Amino acid sequence: MADSWATLGVDLHLDVGSSGVRKGLTDALREAVRGGRLAPGTRLPSSRSLAVDLGLARNTVADAYADLVAEGWLTARQGSGTRVAERAVSRPVRRPTPPRARGPVAYNLSPGTGDLAAFPRAEWLKAYRRALTAAPIEAFGYGDPRGRIELRTVLADYLARVRGVYAEPDRIVICSGTVHGLILLAQVLRARRVRKVAVESYGLAIHRDLFTERGLGLPPLGFDELGTHTRELGRTRPGAVLLTPAHQFPMGLPLSPQRRAAVVDWARGSGGVILEDDYDGEFRYDRQPVGALQSLDPDHVVYMGTASKALAPGLRLGWLVLPADLAAEVAAAKGVEDWYCSSLDQLTLAEFIASGAYDRHVRGTRLRYRRRRDQLVEALAARAPGVRVSGIAAGLHAVLELPPGTEQSVVQAAAWQGLSVTGLSYFRHPEASGAVRDALVLGYGRPPEHAWAGALDALCGVLE
Amino acid sequence: MADSWATLGVDLHLDVGSSGVRKGLTDALREAVRGGRLAPGTRLPSSRSLAVDLGLARNTVADAYADLVAEGWLTARQGSGTRVAERAVSRPVRRPTPPRARGPVAYNLSPGTGDLAAFPRAEWLKAYRRALTAAPIEAFGYGDPRGRIELRTVLADYLARVRGVYAEPDRIVICSGTVHGLILLAQVLRARRVRKVAVESYGLAIHRDLFTERGLGLPPLGFDELGTHTRELGRTRPGAVLLTPAHQFPMGLPLSPQRRAAVVDWARGSGGVILEDDYDGEFRYDRQPVGALQSLDPDHVVYMGTASKALAPGLRLGWLVLPADLAAEVAAAKGVEDWYCSSLDQLTLAEFIASGAYDRHVRGTRLRYRRRRDQLVEALAARAPGVRVSGIAAGLHAVLELPPGTEQSVVQAAAWQGLSVTGLSYFRHPEASGAVRDALVLGYGRPPEHAWAGALDALCGVLE
Repeated sequence: MADSWATLGVDLHLDVGSSGVRKGLTDALREAVRGGRLAPGTRLPSSRSLAVDLGLARNTVADAYADLVAEGWLTARQGSGTRVAERAVSRPVRRPTPPRARGPVAYNLSPGTGDLAAFPRAEWLKAYRRALTAAPIEAFGYGDPRGRIELRTVLADYLARVRGVYAEPDRIVICSGTVHGLILLAQVLRARRVRKVAVESYGLAIHRDLFTERGLGLPPLGFDELGTHTRELGRTRPGAVLLTPAHQFPMGLPLSPQRRAAVVDWARGSGGVILEDDYDGEFRYDRQPVGALQSLDPDHVVYMGTASKALAPGLRLGWLVLPADLAAEVAAAKGVEDWYCSSLDQLTLAEFIASGAYDRHVRGTRLRYRRRRDQLVEALAARAPGVRVSGIAAGLHAVLELPPGTEQSVVQAAAWQGLSVTGLSYFRHPEASGAVRDALVLGYGRPPEHAWAGALDALCGVLE
Repeated sequence: MADSWATLGVDLHLDVGSSGVRKGLTDALREAVRGGRLAPGTRLPSSRSLAVDLGLARNTVADAYADLVAEGWLTARQGSGTRVAERAVSRPVRRPTPPRARGPVAYNLSPGTGDLAAFPRAEWLKAYRRALTAAPIEAFGYGDPRGRIELRTVLADYLARVRGVYAEPDRIVICSGTVHGLILLAQVLRARRVRKVAVESYGLAIHRDLFTERGLGLPPLGFDELGTHTRELGRTRPGAVLLTPAHQFPMGLPLSPQRRAAVVDWARGSGGVILEDDYDGEFRYDRQPVGALQSLDPDHVVYMGTASKALAPGLRLGWLVLPADLAAEVAAAKGVEDWYCSSLDQLTLAEFIASGAYDRHVRGTRLRYRRRRDQLVEALAARAPGVRVSGIAAGLHAVLELPPGTEQSVVQAAAWQGLSVTGLSYFRHPEASGAVRDALVLGYGRPPEHAWAGALDALCGVLE
């Protein structure tokens, strides 16, 4: 039966232990079937003759055949021997695609993240080590859908101290960032028969899309120099409103005190819910941060925070502080257990905040971002004095107003210089009323430190 | 105006720097309003008189007032001075609830997780350190919804080697575990207008529920000693079928070779999708693992794996290997970016597998689980010979058949002894046909090593 062996074309290393021989034979046969070298229907040599051919115990071959029958590669029928199964698929294994090639972008000044190179690797690793060492055994199991109690307790103190949020651990739900939080909220609002969520005229399309996909209408609210209009809430009667009160994204203004009061009054009068996206509340430069709207009425406001701006989006950690009834509903929407958030990451963030490393990191990066902002304002004043800069009291981005009708050409000209920038129109609600404004939304926080000077110079080159 | 100061009851430490004074004053005023010591409508002293009282610069007080007006705690109107806003809420801050009290459970033998105390903390930390140190900067940003390419590449090799899975990195989508994977699949199947997903007569209610919640009907398939019946697929005509072919959960049998072939034939003929939940494929004790069904037809089978059994559910990491068209749809359902899975965790798992630590850990725990299984079988044979044990060739659980009608009373008796066990009826599809069987599904992998002997003794005490 030596020819049957040649047919198989099995390339078998026999210098391994006895269990290895069987595995090697099984693997080689499987590969031969999978790769098409043994065609469907082919009758295999009997286990006795193949064993003689290979100098193996007959049982070893019989076991290998049995394994492959159990896996469905071979079929064995009394009287017709062992054959290659009809359904085995033959195909070449393709190689992985390489990681995305670098584009021609030399500098990225689009908003959305801070300087990712500033991630505090050493401090974070220390916190991870401490968290992993101290983690209770149950932390490795399935957890509370609200998230780890250690993190919720630390966050309650932190948010009260830094953002004036009224936060009890029982009202906090940890999530994988703001998008995950909004998806959970959209589900809960739909279950409450909410049909419309009012949104700002300018904002993130990804947020609008996730509401639309869940069947919610999105009436846009107007915008002026006092921030987003709140009087329209009474007319459009949404079940909820999504706002960025501390630092409107992307326009950069805080919501005026009168409108903060008005939106809370609206929520109380209508039973509506305010969704407060406090995406960069820690980064305010010229005075103490504007406190969270949530503290004005914790029973009508959902506060949303994230580690994406102060630390990194790659961590996928965010938090919701909710009215008590919504906290229960959102936790239930997240699941009967926490299907999403790694307990070790949560314990690490708790340790990172409790140890003071988070505050230190925010202070350090805040200084650097403020310096960049000052350099941006200065450089534009000198080299492109016609460009008005606004929204610069806080955050990691600024709005650069352009002459009417020039936004697209500036974005295009920048791209030709290897500079990625985003026009304001990208953030405009498709149904927004009010005059279209030409501007760039400039993420000055994004470039790594070594690239900042070059990015700023390139930007001025485009605008001057 | 000293009395106005007393009214405020502000307890202010003045031995801080000048910016600290303003912050301290602002915080103290905010707390006084929030805590109800300053009632809504109360008129505050003028900034001038309060400054004199406190020995501060007038601007410091005016700035603190302005901050609190901006936050909505105070209102300022020309002519009527500064007042506490009407909408400020006063409420005591409640203390966090303590972590859940320990119940009376002395031993937990419910299935679902392995021994969480066996998590390889030191090895995992090493992998984390290496991954964090080597992580490219872009790993800290928003990522590919399919997951990190490093992990997908390592998994493709690992799954081909260990489970015979035909896996290309481009067909893999990383998710936060099997539940997340099934939620994504349920969305995609619904979008394809699938109305029914056939499931096994015994399985996890959480899996059935997530399909039901998304509007999918769940016809149950029968079950016998060859595993789940496949012939009913032709009659019920589902768009997909959810199976645990390598080790039926919870019954513990592999799907017979004929039925593996038949279900693939069904998928090819009908265009249906097979969802293969390979939850514990690495833990097989008496012979080489039964290979994954997916390798028989990678274009009709979705392979689902998880780190929850071999490592820990707390990591929240799982993977899908998908037909090419489904891979694109599932990635799109996950999002335009990865909103869920931490990139550092993914890089750590990639490092953990690539370094061989995963294989070593699986081998080590497999030996320990096999020893436990042998001890379980031996102890029951000696002390409860009437109890038949099945489903023991693999996995972290066994089925202990009980005399008809006794399941509930055994579960109850065990609970009285501080022993948590789960009856088979807990896993039965509510519409399953076929005789009801009384049995325990025993998670012998679960107790920590030091508790195993006691748990086994307590179990035998209940059953003998």
